[in-house]
Amino acid sequence: MTEELQQTYEKLAYFFENRKFADLRITLLDTEPYDIAIFMEENLDDKERLVFFRLLPKELASDVFVEIESDSQEYLIKAFTDKELKAVVDDMFLDDTVDVIEEMPASVVKRILKTCDPEDRKQINHLLSYPDDSAGSIMTTEFVALREKMTVSEAFNKIRKTGVDKETVYTCYVTDTKKHLIGVVTVKDLLLADPEDVVANVMDSNVVTVETLDDKEYVAMQLSKYDFLALPVIDKEGCLVGIVTVDDAVDVLQEEATEDIQMMAAVLPTEEPYLKTSVFSIWKARVPWLLILMASATFTSMILAGYEAKLSTVLYAFVPMLMGTAGNAGGQASVTVIRALAVGDVEFKDVFRILWKELRASLLLALTVAVGCFLKMMFIDSLYNEITWQISLVVSGVLFITMVMAKLIGAILPLLAKKVRLDPAVVASPFITTIIDALSLIIYCSIAISIL
Amino acid sequence: MTEELQQTYEKLAYFFENRKFADLRITLLDTEPYDIAIFMEENLDDKERLVFFRLLPKELASDVFVEIESDSQEYLIKAFTDKELKAVVDDMFLDDTVDVIEEMPASVVKRILKTCDPEDRKQINHLLSYPDDSAGSIMTTEFVALREKMTVSEAFNKIRKTGVDKETVYTCYVTDTKKHLIGVVTVKDLLLADPEDVVANVMDSNVVTVETLDDKEYVAMQLSKYDFLALPVIDKEGCLVGIVTVDDAVDVLQEEATEDIQMMAAVLPTEEPYLKTSVFSIWKARVPWLLILMASATFTSMILAGYEAKLSTVLYAFVPMLMGTAGNAGGQASVTVIRALAVGDVEFKDVFRILWKELRASLLLALTVAVGCFLKMMFIDSLYNEITWQISLVVSGVLFITMVMAKLIGAILPLLAKKVRLDPAVVASPFITTIIDALSLIIYCSIAISIL
Repeated sequence: MTEELQQTYEKLAYFFENRKFADLRITLLDTEPYDIAIFMEENLDDKERLVFFRLLPKELASDVFVEIESDSQEYLIKAFTDKELKAVVDDMFLDDTVDVIEEMPASVVKRILKTCDPEDRKQINHLLSYPDDSAGSIMTTEFVALREKMTVSEAFNKIRKTGVDKETVYTCYVTDTKKHLIGVVTVKDLLLADPEDVVANVMDSNVVTVETLDDKEYVAMQLSKYDFLALPVIDKEGCLVGIVTVDDAVDVLQEEATEDIQMMAAVLPTEEPYLKTSVFSIWKARVPWLLILMASATFTSMILAGYEAKLSTVLYAFVPMLMGTAGNAGGQASVTVIRALAVGDVEFKDVFRILWKELRASLLLALTVAVGCFLKMMFIDSLYNEITWQISLVVSGVLFITMVMAKLIGAILPLLAKKVRLDPAVVASPFITTIIDALSLIIYCSIAISIL
Repeated sequence: MTEELQQTYEKLAYFFENRKFADLRITLLDTEPYDIAIFMEENLDDKERLVFFRLLPKELASDVFVEIESDSQEYLIKAFTDKELKAVVDDMFLDDTVDVIEEMPASVVKRILKTCDPEDRKQINHLLSYPDDSAGSIMTTEFVALREKMTVSEAFNKIRKTGVDKETVYTCYVTDTKKHLIGVVTVKDLLLADPEDVVANVMDSNVVTVETLDDKEYVAMQLSKYDFLALPVIDKEGCLVGIVTVDDAVDVLQEEATEDIQMMAAVLPTEEPYLKTSVFSIWKARVPWLLILMASATFTSMILAGYEAKLSTVLYAFVPMLMGTAGNAGGQASVTVIRALAVGDVEFKDVFRILWKELRASLLLALTVAVGCFLKMMFIDSLYNEITWQISLVVSGVLFITMVMAKLIGAILPLLAKKVRLDPAVVASPFITTIIDALSLIIYCSIAISIL
């Protein structure tokens, strides 16, 4: 937190406690809605939050409301009069209303919908009907629609008249009478055009679009790669039904990265911010993979028990190093491929180019690390253990083989997962490690025993 | 890739090969610059790319140029005549020129700078002087500056006159004669205002700013949390020196997420897309941690060798399970905390709240998994090994202790790293795993031997 913000928070707290409401309002008008929301979350309890919220300048109320946590929102809505609720809901963008509604219990949802006017209610119900991870679920229906035959100055009039309620006015969409999307025009284009020219001459008729059921991550990636501020969403008939704005796309990209990172660490994805997540939710997100991975270690225990009498204790001492290094090597490859898939650098069709690259990289890496391991065993491990050059050679040799194997498995599994429409991150490090652990142990034990 | 894009690529290839340049131009005008760049990268060699580039409609040339890979850019620049180079460079935004320059050898940089007019050259040199990860390095100096006393219609005239060269016109900045930033006004505000009103009455004088040397990740996070389209960058004197636009912020967030993911998997961060990375670069990025982690496994080897005679082979069989489970438990905690730090959900000051949460979660998790482990050993492992209830109890008990320890270490190390201004992701799973491996082995061996 910056010092300036710290000072603002101290002022807000002081004015609020000492009931200096005029000063409070002035400070609030100079503070970003997001920062006010964080202040309310961190410094006030439910009752205080209600009092504080009622003191907010009207023009800030709904902007602050959308930024606070959903449990606080629920408390506020329940305490609001019908009139207060209507004021907040009317001022919110439809996609934000939908986000709020999605976290509320049925009774609260009913009350919110009752306060909306019929047209909004219809649109909200429509937006609520899209699947959770679809373009439809993150789009808003509040965009500026223009007509081909309008002049530029008519277009500006329309923007002036309807723009205040729109999520963005900077990209406007040109539709025909049947709502088919036929072009896109930015306010910049309009500003630089002759006011008497018609929109048809200014617009770009080559429009990049997405469909309502497209994956929201794909939509966000499109926005990011083309550097757009908004992307139109069309239905199967080519009619414009909504737009996705860049701020929502950024949130999606951040959430998807968090989800991938969680899955790579064997945690089930959670959406709550960490400090808001209950201990029980943390338990629920982490325990499945811990149990699965613990149970799957049965294989390594069986292998070790099976070779019990035959593997000398000198050789046992290198089991963790072997399994660990192979696991790390596989993890590097899998995570690299998973991220490359996520950001669109590679697709399944690149499978052979990827394997060829990983094969060469792994041979080089395995050689380096195996030589390093041989030297370490001869000069360091020999200080505390009875190491012969034969033992060093076998251990390094097995290390070489397991590393190459681990890299190839690590690279191909995420691609196969993608192919069968699983999230590639599911097969990340912990899962792959288990496979690699068992395989490297079998290779080690069988080679070591047959040679030494 | 969508089917539509696939068809466009086929058309482009056909028209280019058959020298149907009129058709080619028409298709190009209907294609996004980004997609044209990808087409040139994937389907043409260097020489063809030069011919193709020369066929691009003028208005697309520089937009396509900034999107192609830097080695292709270098080839093109070297082949360009001075006039061609000047046309491309003049049309590029300054921050894009800087991005291009940063990847070029000195001789090419010199040639680019020579073609710029003196004012641009000065600004480019200035932008080049900012550290790699600072706000200054990703900002552009091409913004619209307005004066307080201008009327709204005068402001629009200024935007019309200078806007074509600006990276964004939608957020304008109001400065005084000494370039101090005194307010911000959006085109939406201006459109909705009375044309005769002065800018001072329309602007918002409470401006969120960042400084030139602020970390670029912090800047991107600010843009994303406030949902801005651009953020002004000021110097130490409060003078406006540039702006960061949302498209660059998105790139930074994506790059930082990739970097964190790479570090969590013990890979040194690389910036190149995967298929463009040479085998040698992959080797360089992956070999350091592999060697370090391999060498640090010396500890586990030493511990195992030290307890050699005293640890029965039955107990040896559970070493991989113990180390693996503890490692996974620690990895879950560390990755969760690292990501929470990255997205701004927690800060160092939350250290006690985090530890308290992790302690409770870890006790619950460790209990569940330890009970699971005890049952597994009694009912499954006993089928192939001589397991007594005492052995099961000791193994599960050690598992419980090491899991709690692993969670706490995993949670606190990233916070400590952050405190001493290291990247928290550096201490992610592989690093923590090594510590946890050694600790859990010591606990296991000493407890097992003293009890059994």
